[in-house]
Amino acid sequence: MQTLTVELGDRAYPIHIGPGLLDRADLVLPHLIQKRAVIVTNTTVGPLYLERFSQTLKNAGMQVDSVVLPDGEAYKNWETLNLIFDALLTQRAERKTTLIALGGGVIGDLTGFAAASYQRGMPFIQIPTTLLAQVDSSVGGKTGINHPLGKNMIGAFYQPQLVLADTETLNTLPARELSAGLAEVIKYGLIRDLPFLEWLEANMEALMARDTTALTYAIRRSCENKAEVVAADERESGQRALLNLGHTFGHAIETGMGYGNWLHGEGVSAGTMLAADLSRRMGLISTADVERIAALFHRAGLPVVAPDLGYDAYMDYMGVDKKVEAGRIRFVLFKQLGEAFVSGPGTPNDYDPDALRATLTEAVSKS
Amino acid sequence: MQTLTVELGDRAYPIHIGPGLLDRADLVLPHLIQKRAVIVTNTTVGPLYLERFSQTLKNAGMQVDSVVLPDGEAYKNWETLNLIFDALLTQRAERKTTLIALGGGVIGDLTGFAAASYQRGMPFIQIPTTLLAQVDSSVGGKTGINHPLGKNMIGAFYQPQLVLADTETLNTLPARELSAGLAEVIKYGLIRDLPFLEWLEANMEALMARDTTALTYAIRRSCENKAEVVAADERESGQRALLNLGHTFGHAIETGMGYGNWLHGEGVSAGTMLAADLSRRMGLISTADVERIAALFHRAGLPVVAPDLGYDAYMDYMGVDKKVEAGRIRFVLFKQLGEAFVSGPGTPNDYDPDALRATLTEAVSKS
Repeated sequence: MQTLTVELGDRAYPIHIGPGLLDRADLVLPHLIQKRAVIVTNTTVGPLYLERFSQTLKNAGMQVDSVVLPDGEAYKNWETLNLIFDALLTQRAERKTTLIALGGGVIGDLTGFAAASYQRGMPFIQIPTTLLAQVDSSVGGKTGINHPLGKNMIGAFYQPQLVLADTETLNTLPARELSAGLAEVIKYGLIRDLPFLEWLEANMEALMARDTTALTYAIRRSCENKAEVVAADERESGQRALLNLGHTFGHAIETGMGYGNWLHGEGVSAGTMLAADLSRRMGLISTADVERIAALFHRAGLPVVAPDLGYDAYMDYMGVDKKVEAGRIRFVLFKQLGEAFVSGPGTPNDYDPDALRATLTEAVSKS
Repeated sequence: MQTLTVELGDRAYPIHIGPGLLDRADLVLPHLIQKRAVIVTNTTVGPLYLERFSQTLKNAGMQVDSVVLPDGEAYKNWETLNLIFDALLTQRAERKTTLIALGGGVIGDLTGFAAASYQRGMPFIQIPTTLLAQVDSSVGGKTGINHPLGKNMIGAFYQPQLVLADTETLNTLPARELSAGLAEVIKYGLIRDLPFLEWLEANMEALMARDTTALTYAIRRSCENKAEVVAADERESGQRALLNLGHTFGHAIETGMGYGNWLHGEGVSAGTMLAADLSRRMGLISTADVERIAALFHRAGLPVVAPDLGYDAYMDYMGVDKKVEAGRIRFVLFKQLGEAFVSGPGTPNDYDPDALRATLTEAVSKS
């Protein structure tokens, strides 16, 4: 087991990474105020791990209740969030009861927001069971739900007490979701860690084959990168925005194609290729760089061509994006491979609107 | 105009109290990131003050949108909250746009929770237009909505940038709501400020006659008391719980009688009388003390006898209260007039269950 700490002052918390952590009540107990927990999971992960993990906690003398939600991004909404509140109130969960998220990013986001909001805040623990959640959504305190008019529009910044990333849970992960997780892993190399990017290029086959050593290194390096960024900029005013590489385009793709049809990581992959294309058109990176990025995503089993939603639809979907400022969109663009920056409205750093139009009409699927 | 500051480190904010503040754009402008605001109000307050206050801001060069919600505690729920989100998304409000609550406690709670949750947090300003909101719900950062199974169960601790308490808005306040506000004013005297309690006994007629000087003093002294408590204990682990005098019983009364039928302050008044009766039965205060409290509430036009919901119903409603810890209820009780304490499960400070049963069966309305 490896451990790193997300440094956030009095809200600092540890991330443990390794096999068999679902059996380790000793890692959970020091973080409880009350020996009582409610586990939130879904109909996919529940049958695999809920009974085992509940038993781990019960054997340690804890009172354990659970809520099993429907699975999928399409359920990341108020109705599902309310199922958690209903269960907490029916079970009379208290303000010092701990809420535990056992599942992927959707479960983590829903559970985190429920924990942030139930009685105005109760402790919670993240147990991410997908690669995406282990490297991304369990670090940084972003929680929330979707709104019909925009993804992740309603939520809170709320930190867990603890994250347990059990690498054994990745053995039951569908191939498509493994790939989606790798999109975020690759992102860290692209935005700020060229040596890691090169390591990924050398080890992509091992990752796709679920080699434990390779996965453990990739998770740890991703969490370290994200933890460094988040610790420096918890509320996303500066550096943290770099983590949104491919996300402005990606969210538009996810929204345009209908929630749940494209996985988040797939949107990020195709969205990053749009950001790369825009950067190339602005003379920031070369065609060879764009192809190198595409090759790595492709080897990770990810889509590298965005759907043709139409320029107006893209702009419309991006218009309500959280990175919007003073009416202009802010994009994460490439300075070079391993170094990204955020475009700034009204500065020399701003994106080129003509290049954006070309990207959204020419660099998309023509099939 | 008088000003006090709620000391909360980097989230400290000023409260301005005085007449004519709705015309003072100069007080608002220093607190904006973007010269853009969305005002949330309701169908009662909107017709009185929305146009005037919008014009104040527009004359100062601001872009101003608004949302008008239905009025009443019965609307303090997810559906109404979502009307704010719909408006923010339709109007493409940004993360740096300021949300302004113009109304009473329900508007403040809804708007504050919307501001805390929209894009995971946007700035907001409170402009309380009821006495209750001016002395209580605009100070302390408590925001949220009700759930069918419990009041204020879903929400956030979220601080405003600024509070403007315009005393002129009290001239349009219905008498019943003035009284409800006075319940919270009296509470500050009861829990920690005997000189203020004595001042209230000497000036209740002036307050009921809406004497500006008396009201200004009462608002300021209440805010100071609350600000001192909140600054010392932002997240309600200790001293802040004293602010809940009468609230555990009061919430049960409000829930049991159906949201919106009893005003919050009315529940607090009758609930405080139950707390006083319980304290008397436990030998903490005298019958004369109880009668003195009742006399002051009565002069403020408030109910002093709680409804007979039945012991089981009271216990049931109080069982999901946020002050519950380790399965036992925590009550705010009287040590003496002007000094309250929180009962502690398993300590000599705990309440007497037999006395509680007697209070809930004998000190309630027999009509």
